Amino acid sequence: MSRVKEFDVGEACEAALALFRRQGYEATSVSDLVTHLGVAKASLYATFGTKHDLYVAALKRYAEQTDARVVAELSKPGSGVAAVKRLLDGYVADILGEAGPIGCFVVNAAIELLPHDPAVARVVERSWDTLEVALTMALERAKAQDELSADSDPATIARFLLTVLQGLRVLGKGSDAADRLHAAVSQALRLIQD
Amino acid sequence: MSRVKEFDVGEACEAALALFRRQGYEATSVSDLVTHLGVAKASLYATFGTKHDLYVAALKRYAEQTDARVVAELSKPGSGVAAVKRLLDGYVADILGEAGPIGCFVVNAAIELLPHDPAVARVVERSWDTLEVALTMALERAKAQDELSADSDPATIARFLLTVLQGLRVLGKGSDAADRLHAAVSQALRLIQD
Repeated sequence: MSRVKEFDVGEACEAALALFRRQGYEATSVSDLVTHLGVAKASLYATFGTKHDLYVAALKRYAEQTDARVVAELSKPGSGVAAVKRLLDGYVADILGEAGPIGCFVVNAAIELLPHDPAVARVVERSWDTLEVALTMALERAKAQDELSADSDPATIARFLLTVLQGLRVLGKGSDAADRLHAAVSQALRLIQD
Repeated sequence: MSRVKEFDVGEACEAALALFRRQGYEATSVSDLVTHLGVAKASLYATFGTKHDLYVAALKRYAEQTDARVVAELSKPGSGVAAVKRLLDGYVADILGEAGPIGCFVVNAAIELLPHDPAVARVVERSWDTLEVALTMALERAKAQDELSADSDPATIARFLLTVLQGLRVLGKGSDAADRLHAAVSQALRLIQD
């Protein structure tokens, strides 16, 4: 991990992540990476392999970071409904802030490279699976705590919320997303707050 | 419109649409277009201008076609709620059929090129605005016909449904989308059917 290199591998991966997330896979050339990461081409290849290998590593890094935050948020003891609401509100704040125009790296990757890229598909599916499971667990907790009615179906509601979250990311690319995002979240929450 | 050309302009635009929709803007080269459209490079430039001009024309063509179908579906007399349900079910059928892996051209364009491409942004925003207005009108009709409660807000529900539709498109890129899409639509409809 701490072998002496000409550059910090973690920092380089983070820089690649930012570039790929903003520009996409196709639009990012190896010479863009060399310039942006400040690393010689030969070192880049020696450390990360191909441009595709580096893309997958950066995407995985992003997905692991963001999914860990979601899991942490939804695991907090207390109201499951409140945890889901905090998560949705956090997405909206993030999208209406700096992240909206850049987009979610997982969504960007899915739209650009699925279904034809199995390595990217694996990272995307794992991230969506994680979100779905984490939402289901928070909603199961809510149901067990009588926050949801006895006939509610946490797994189905979780899939619905996963869909809404992806929709927020897409509309966040638009120029006046605020009304749409707030409306979407307020309506989605009606299903678990009524 | 019917000036004699070496090729059919409408057909060429349709072929460009299919290619750009599947591959994206960056990944489609001018020589891809020349091969796929069967049109000489000089004729392509003379008729459509740059690759970017052709992309915008193809995207506009796609958006106009799909938006016209949505407007027609949601304008049909009768139950407004039933019209919205038909629209959502139609999206799911389309995505679980051939369209899922290819994606929606408008979503693909938004993710790849917004917010930095004003010409593409204009087409995307117009399509989203059209969907939102058409949904609002169908829901207003439903409200006037007592299908929705008097305190319901058609504009807010329309924005929510627009978000869900974009989410369906994203998840449709995944390998086992059926459960997620059906769950999302069943829950979304609860908001207007209960």
